Amino acid sequence: MKFNNKYHLIGNVAIGTNVRIGDRTIIYDCVEIGDNSIIANDCVIGEPLSEYYYNDKYTNPKTAIGPNCLIRSHTIIYAGNTIGDNFQTGHGATVRENSTIGCNCSIGTFSDIQGFVKIGNYCRLHSNVFIPQYTVLGNFVFVYPGVIMTNDKTPPSNLQKGPFIEDYSQISAGSVILPGIRIGKNCLVGAGSVVTSNVNDYSLVSGNPARFVKDIREIKSWESDSLHYPWMYHFVRGMPWEDMGYDAWVSLNQDAQ
Amino acid sequence: MKFNNKYHLIGNVAIGTNVRIGDRTIIYDCVEIGDNSIIANDCVIGEPLSEYYYNDKYTNPKTAIGPNCLIRSHTIIYAGNTIGDNFQTGHGATVRENSTIGCNCSIGTFSDIQGFVKIGNYCRLHSNVFIPQYTVLGNFVFVYPGVIMTNDKTPPSNLQKGPFIEDYSQISAGSVILPGIRIGKNCLVGAGSVVTSNVNDYSLVSGNPARFVKDIREIKSWESDSLHYPWMYHFVRGMPWEDMGYDAWVSLNQDAQ
Amino acid sequence: MKFNNKYHLIGNVAIGTNVRIGDRTIIYDCVEIGDNSIIANDCVIGEPLSEYYYNDKYTNPKTAIGPNCLIRSHTIIYAGNTIGDNFQTGHGATVRENSTIGCNCSIGTFSDIQGFVKIGNYCRLHSNVFIPQYTVLGNFVFVYPGVIMTNDKTPPSNLQKGPFIEDYSQISAGSVILPGIRIGKNCLVGAGSVVTSNVNDYSLVSGNPARFVKDIREIKSWESDSLHYPWMYHFVRGMPWEDMGYDAWVSLNQDAQ
Repeated sequence: MKFNNKYHLIGNVAIGTNVRIGDRTIIYDCVEIGDNSIIANDCVIGEPLSEYYYNDKYTNPKTAIGPNCLIRSHTIIYAGNTIGDNFQTGHGATVRENSTIGCNCSIGTFSDIQGFVKIGNYCRLHSNVFIPQYTVLGNFVFVYPGVIMTNDKTPPSNLQKGPFIEDYSQISAGSVILPGIRIGKNCLVGAGSVVTSNVNDYSLVSGNPARFVKDIREIKSWESDSLHYPWMYHFVRGMPWEDMGYDAWVSLNQDAQ
Repeated sequence: MKFNNKYHLIGNVAIGTNVRIGDRTIIYDCVEIGDNSIIANDCVIGEPLSEYYYNDKYTNPKTAIGPNCLIRSHTIIYAGNTIGDNFQTGHGATVRENSTIGCNCSIGTFSDIQGFVKIGNYCRLHSNVFIPQYTVLGNFVFVYPGVIMTNDKTPPSNLQKGPFIEDYSQISAGSVILPGIRIGKNCLVGAGSVVTSNVNDYSLVSGNPARFVKDIREIKSWESDSLHYPWMYHFVRGMPWEDMGYDAWVSLNQDAQ
Repeated sequence: MKFNNKYHLIGNVAIGTNVRIGDRTIIYDCVEIGDNSIIANDCVIGEPLSEYYYNDKYTNPKTAIGPNCLIRSHTIIYAGNTIGDNFQTGHGATVRENSTIGCNCSIGTFSDIQGFVKIGNYCRLHSNVFIPQYTVLGNFVFVYPGVIMTNDKTPPSNLQKGPFIEDYSQISAGSVILPGIRIGKNCLVGAGSVVTSNVNDYSLVSGNPARFVKDIREIKSWESDSLHYPWMYHFVRGMPWEDMGYDAWVSLNQDAQ
């Protein structure tokens, strides 16, 4: 009863085994969906670029979405994207064309990823995040609600360069990140900050404009009185080190290389 | 002609008298809708939790929405919510699971209420407001467009504690409220503020970080040259004291207790 | 195959020649759509005011949308709007009642225009912009993602007065503009600013509260080492001076008057 086979496949679509697709969802030409994925009602996968409406010879770029995804209702994923396994979205998330999103990522309700973006593995973009073209996020980067990244320093211009945010960094809610800014590894950007200059590894920055406050390794948890960062030692839910601890996971990964 | 009976009721749904439901709207199991409510097109009421997709024995928590509501198109209200009468939403509002919303509240277009939230009576959340889990709003709290509340002081962690905002306070557009912050009664948070510490009753705070500016009882109206706060003496539209004035309403309520 | 004639026209609708309309899109009474316009799936054009639900004698105000528009999916345009030619929207844009929008404007994904707004020609509102009632934008005003404008200085009150932003000004991402503020011509508001006082022509302002930083004519491009503003000499894509240059276009326009 959950899925009524009232979706629409347009053109050449490759659907894996045990994929379930909601009502009114449209999957366009040249889309591949991995096994066991769920695409809820009213989604669009492989949304064509606007040329589609004006050029009869338009061909849709290839779109690939990995296995075990859960794409919630009203999500729109444009053509030309490559997205890994275990991908999740909230409601009404949009992902424009030609982005690459790794494995185990999530994109929250009403978040808007503008295309030509690179997102690593295990990134979590919460609700209503805006990521402009040519932004790069490493792995385990969490971006909290309402964060806005930018890509044009002298608008309007013909140069677009988004932020580059490295592994494990946390961008708190309501922050604005200026174009081309590099935020190093293991950083914490405080809520409501406006980041106008590069941030070194292990920095807490805060304010408008954001200033260095302290090394994150000096921040105490608000759960206990102990030091909280690097957070990988204290937060494991959904992380690949959930069962073994972060250090064991790191050495396992090093051995694997 | 307005309502074509092309909606979907799934499972055990209790619809009051004179309820009108739009096309393609889906109402899931264990939802109650009060009399005379209108649910426009493309809404989802009682949206199941994600376990629904993976567990055949999933049962949907009870959802109750009071009478005389107007829920605009594309609104998604999860299962497990209890919402009072005269509730209104804009387009595409989302309310996650297990929240309690009082009577005469409104939630604007694209606002996202994340669940486990308590909202009193006569609260107005305008467009694009983000309310995280475990936030508490009193009565007559107005939250203006783009306000972001937060609930994790050392993200990511396992402790979530949202703000607590008391009766009559006004949170102006684009503000960010930090986790666990208490904003007292009759406060005014200026537009674009980042509130990082508790705010005493009757305070105007503003800036990033927000600082105390003055007692709200010293603020003049921009409509006239007279003092404007507490606003209940100068703004009555839609308020329960609309016909009798605030003082009369207060003493009526005291007598009723 | 792109358009399946599965849309709904309700009442008296005037559709131009070669207009294409997507599935499930609803066009209400007293709407005119200009020639060659495309309205994608799941849009609503001429959305009635809430009185529609309660008053059987309700009549829908006239809505006019010019030729050559591209309105993307899930956009909701209320009744009573007048919109020029070459209008474009992203997904899920909403435009409330009784606004006037000139020619060659675009409104991005999830942006929310609240009604009684005046927008000139060639304005670009990017994703997730909030424009409240009684805001006025001139011509060639670009508003970047997540900008929030406001219209009540002592909320809640009965006076609403939005900002007035003059020709060519650029409002960078994540800014908040206070009620009734006038931003002159050729200004640049830095990302994440909170603009609390009027801004003179040719000013760069930045910060919270926004302060004057420098004359925009002193800002160098980040594409080259040369001065970038007024931007009309360096950015032409989609502008009416694209083929002839800004000065030639200005004198052509002066001759035409």
